Amino acid sequence: MPDLKKLIRPLVHRLHAYVPGEQPKDRKLIKLNTNENPFPPAPAVLRAVKNSVDERLRLYPNPNAQPLREALASYHGCGVENVIVGNGSDELLALATRAFVEPDAKGDRALIQYFHPSYSLYPVLTDISGGTRNAVSLDEDFSIPSQAELRRRGWRNAAALTYVTTPNAPGGRGYSTAELDQLCQRTKGIVILDEAYVDFAEEHAMSLALKRPHVIVSRTFSKSFSLCFQRIGYFVGHPDVLQALDKIRDSYNVNGLGQAAALATLKNLAYYRKNFRDIKATRARVGEALTDLGFKVLPSQTNFLLIEPPRFAAKTWHKKLREKKLIVRWFDQPETRQYFRVTIGTDREMDAFLRAVRAILK
Amino acid sequence: MPDLKKLIRPLVHRLHAYVPGEQPKDRKLIKLNTNENPFPPAPAVLRAVKNSVDERLRLYPNPNAQPLREALASYHGCGVENVIVGNGSDELLALATRAFVEPDAKGDRALIQYFHPSYSLYPVLTDISGGTRNAVSLDEDFSIPSQAELRRRGWRNAAALTYVTTPNAPGGRGYSTAELDQLCQRTKGIVILDEAYVDFAEEHAMSLALKRPHVIVSRTFSKSFSLCFQRIGYFVGHPDVLQALDKIRDSYNVNGLGQAAALATLKNLAYYRKNFRDIKATRARVGEALTDLGFKVLPSQTNFLLIEPPRFAAKTWHKKLREKKLIVRWFDQPETRQYFRVTIGTDREMDAFLRAVRAILK
Repeated sequence: MPDLKKLIRPLVHRLHAYVPGEQPKDRKLIKLNTNENPFPPAPAVLRAVKNSVDERLRLYPNPNAQPLREALASYHGCGVENVIVGNGSDELLALATRAFVEPDAKGDRALIQYFHPSYSLYPVLTDISGGTRNAVSLDEDFSIPSQAELRRRGWRNAAALTYVTTPNAPGGRGYSTAELDQLCQRTKGIVILDEAYVDFAEEHAMSLALKRPHVIVSRTFSKSFSLCFQRIGYFVGHPDVLQALDKIRDSYNVNGLGQAAALATLKNLAYYRKNFRDIKATRARVGEALTDLGFKVLPSQTNFLLIEPPRFAAKTWHKKLREKKLIVRWFDQPETRQYFRVTIGTDREMDAFLRAVRAILK
Repeated sequence: MPDLKKLIRPLVHRLHAYVPGEQPKDRKLIKLNTNENPFPPAPAVLRAVKNSVDERLRLYPNPNAQPLREALASYHGCGVENVIVGNGSDELLALATRAFVEPDAKGDRALIQYFHPSYSLYPVLTDISGGTRNAVSLDEDFSIPSQAELRRRGWRNAAALTYVTTPNAPGGRGYSTAELDQLCQRTKGIVILDEAYVDFAEEHAMSLALKRPHVIVSRTFSKSFSLCFQRIGYFVGHPDVLQALDKIRDSYNVNGLGQAAALATLKNLAYYRKNFRDIKATRARVGEALTDLGFKVLPSQTNFLLIEPPRFAAKTWHKKLREKKLIVRWFDQPETRQYFRVTIGTDREMDAFLRAVRAILK
């Protein structure tokens, strides 16, 4: 038998894969761990997808997601050439490392920069791409440090690629467009503003992607539009920059039923806007209840709360809640170890969560 | 405005994207250009997909396509660890370049090898990955040259990655498992036997993927199982080799409805086996009719025929057929320029094709 290790690139051999949040089989569990939207897609969206399940499945989907890109362009008031669609935004975030980062270069051309803590996929993508990690610490309350402080913490304006999760995950904090614009203006490489949770926030920074050629805004249908299952994400940015991604993506990267679902979603925005309002109201209510119970609740502009629990360690809370059929997320890292993260579910789910919390506190 | 070219890797800047076959909007056209299966998915498969279109779309799909991998393992009589599922086999073919080929190395470690002509994606993937192309000519009748002749044409047993389209596309020729095994045995790097069309052939080489650790067999649900729209492909191979791909793929690379469709497909194989028989019968009938009309028809073990037309150049035939609402595929390369490729459609479609051919010959 040949030495299989020799067949695999040393870089890949050394990698540790990204660990996604648990997707349990037990349907009785209340799943508040991966920031899925608690509401189903709009009835009209489900109908549209069902109506697409026919003879057409034998055919290739639209290779450029053209009708969806046209609808997104009209949604954001930009050109169709300002939009690229991916198999989830994860695919596009990964493509960016391969289009913009020189793997074996020295210095800034190889640098992938992101705040810490933020989306835990970025360091994984950095390692996969052969780029160099530059994780810059956020302040303790997850706000972005001052310019001078950023520099002190190793921020590089010339990094080939910078990811900014805005609002932040797992912290939940939102950033103003003015603050992000200052950051983007100083940064010279590609900046991706990863707005996976922005529909639960007060502001979005889409204007920056259309104003500054080196800035991309990343969006996904997973969270706001209850379509995790279907894998639809997109980037908005300058056509010349997006073209680089377009050249290296798979030809038929976006499945056809996902395209149909996303297209129908954009025709039913009123339904989703109500969901955003409901989730934000539940978030406020749960945040207050937890504060009353002695939790430290970080301000959130997302569909989750990062909370520091009283009495037991966060890790213990995670375990105790699990025993009560509730899954939340705990990140075993120095900056987040004292917190756990809870996704905002339906009112009913959150009532069950609060009941469990009270029972544990007794 | 910054110089955007500087933000993009020179390698990417220089790339030309893969050009997929035309996906026309005009529903009146008879589409015989991209080797799609003319039959819809089994009614039970359509039902299973429709029944999955519900509240679950808000949730992430199974990240490892676990139930589908289990079903595939049982279908092929192997372990679940011998199977990895991708967003179409194209995704996996691309991942292989990134797992096994050292982009900036010199010599064999950077070499991506494939026969010419074969699937036109391979050179594109090579360029994207920063590997070095090694296209080795097939014989004129699309058979694999002898070992000595292969060496003379530049075949490298130590190439990091070798793709073999079997049966060949666009030629249609099938290769025996014995012949492929000899080739695999001599080749020391990873060999991917790309069996996209194998369900229309007399033999498959799945046993080699389970016998030889450096051999992978690639399959897709697109062609045999009428699921192009859904993007499901998979590799069978040694667990240690597949693990390298698993580490670098996107976490939720396979959409949920695609997984549901593929799973239901494997429970309805009788329906598809009848389709394979029907397509092969139609292929034989059309091949004979074309031979009688003066065409040179290459032997095919696929769902298409590569044919050399009489009277006019193949390019002209392509154009004349298009005027009659029939799309076939013509490849503008020295080795294929004299042929055009026609996908085997339904009997009705092929009768329309033969009528058009006769009218053009008149």
